[in-house]
Amino acid sequence: MGTIRLYNRDRIDRVIRLDTTLINEIESAFTDLTTKQVIMPPIMRIDVPRNNGEVDIKSAYIEGVDSFAVKLSSGFFDNPKRGLPSANGMMILLSAVTGEPLAVFADNGLLTDLRTAAAGAVAARVLSREDSRVAGVIGTGSQARYQMEALVNVRDIQKMNVYGRSTEKAEAYKRDMESQLNIPVEVKQTPKEVVQESEVVITTTPATKPIIQSDWLHPGLHITAMGSDAEHKQELDAKVLEASDRFVCDVVEQSLRLGELRACTNEQVRSSAVELGEITSERKIGRSNPNQITICDLTGTGAQDTAIARYVYQLLEEEESHERS
Amino acid sequence: MGTIRLYNRDRIDRVIRLDTTLINEIESAFTDLTTKQVIMPPIMRIDVPRNNGEVDIKSAYIEGVDSFAVKLSSGFFDNPKRGLPSANGMMILLSAVTGEPLAVFADNGLLTDLRTAAAGAVAARVLSREDSRVAGVIGTGSQARYQMEALVNVRDIQKMNVYGRSTEKAEAYKRDMESQLNIPVEVKQTPKEVVQESEVVITTTPATKPIIQSDWLHPGLHITAMGSDAEHKQELDAKVLEASDRFVCDVVEQSLRLGELRACTNEQVRSSAVELGEITSERKIGRSNPNQITICDLTGTGAQDTAIARYVYQLLEEEESHERS
Repeated sequence: MGTIRLYNRDRIDRVIRLDTTLINEIESAFTDLTTKQVIMPPIMRIDVPRNNGEVDIKSAYIEGVDSFAVKLSSGFFDNPKRGLPSANGMMILLSAVTGEPLAVFADNGLLTDLRTAAAGAVAARVLSREDSRVAGVIGTGSQARYQMEALVNVRDIQKMNVYGRSTEKAEAYKRDMESQLNIPVEVKQTPKEVVQESEVVITTTPATKPIIQSDWLHPGLHITAMGSDAEHKQELDAKVLEASDRFVCDVVEQSLRLGELRACTNEQVRSSAVELGEITSERKIGRSNPNQITICDLTGTGAQDTAIARYVYQLLEEEESHERS
Repeated sequence: MGTIRLYNRDRIDRVIRLDTTLINEIESAFTDLTTKQVIMPPIMRIDVPRNNGEVDIKSAYIEGVDSFAVKLSSGFFDNPKRGLPSANGMMILLSAVTGEPLAVFADNGLLTDLRTAAAGAVAARVLSREDSRVAGVIGTGSQARYQMEALVNVRDIQKMNVYGRSTEKAEAYKRDMESQLNIPVEVKQTPKEVVQESEVVITTTPATKPIIQSDWLHPGLHITAMGSDAEHKQELDAKVLEASDRFVCDVVEQSLRLGELRACTNEQVRSSAVELGEITSERKIGRSNPNQITICDLTGTGAQDTAIARYVYQLLEEEESHERS
């Protein structure tokens, strides 16, 4: 019987980097979704209406992989009144050989943020033009930051455009990201300008009405929509999907239920939707010419959680074995 | 943000006792199931067929209670070949106010064993004759031990009868329990003798065919069936239920699906089945005369997990605050 270890957010933050290695691990998870048997039970949801809260539990076991993660993520929307963030979360890594718990990551959502950003980089790597130099981001929160930190691993970004509803937050974003990535950031007054003046656009908002319109699109553009992950959310107008040459998502069934396909009733778009794993596994082609408009809608999968939990566990084990020797 | 704590089995074992306080806590959980709004989502199950394993995730939030548990329990049936037990498990206690994880109990199934035994004592307290002196147990494993340890808190047991398929294990049970409880234990050669010669009988087996027959029953008998908790398990012949005066279970819907009601197609029995919480809350009567034959079928509920996780967390907090002062 091994000893289960508890790692807190600080400990995890010290050991993990949003680098190409992590991006490759997440890409492998998408490939596994297409090429391997994956057991991904429906999400378990516990509602706590009294405190305006909910806890979701997700898991995914990939056939043949020797461990898998169970993730608890909570949203308690009265927390800000108490001076606490709404979102919280933790992951548990279990042995798929013996069922024993191996580690608990009290990561407070960090691993979810990182695997989501890494998935954005995977999408950009297989779908955006290789010569993309200008990135745009809608939203100024932590995911908007992680997305750009991940993107610069896969594209030679020379400039960023950002839009946020709060100019103050957009200015803070500019300041922080310029200092962190050493790339100039321009604050735009409208999402339209961001889309028109960028080659890779990432949307990271909790929008419930579409914020991107089809007449802003231009040849060669790639958009990744990270925000929508629930029945009431939507970032892209349905016509944006119709106007694109390639619509990709992580899991078609999830995009239809929780993502951008939900609002798009065009049968042609729905039936030609491709999963990201079909492209990373090279079963299907991503972008086939530089003028295509490509879109990727990411709703999040348990397979990504399993991939990042396994990866950080390995990093922590290596560090500890290094410290012991 | 509080700091999440990890407690292992030894730590938990040192602080918790199978005593009247714990039994009362579990009784309250049954009462809550009847009197309060309880959100108990369907069990999440992750199958790992390659290693003959499965992980079940259960949870229950009781309206108005300020924390709740999520339990992971695994059964990996090739583990014995590796010298490991098949079963494993852990619980996580979450704040129902903020969603924050409060504690992880890497209890390896201990808390489940204890809450199950405490539930048996609750059933015996409200259903068996108050003057019961002879207890019988079918099975010789850890639950057969915990059940008797719990039972002596609520009934003045003077003698025990035990049956197990392995005489060697039954002898070990006798030796261990006589020393632990200071009560004489007789090893019986058949389950029939145990039932005929006892006033309170507990069955704790993984039987898939009924082991108790209706013609062994006698006036005043109480039986608690702990074993069946899956579609293929059964300990009591359907005629046993028909021959009883009162059939009680923890959750009717679960007993119909996973417990003893599954094999009993008698509409009269099914429609008159009572839940344990209806009795502990005094909405319905348990035993109404000393000659009745009563039965209780327990399949296990997330509400019990939440109750014991909250209780042990409180004990650990008290101990730690005591150590600090």
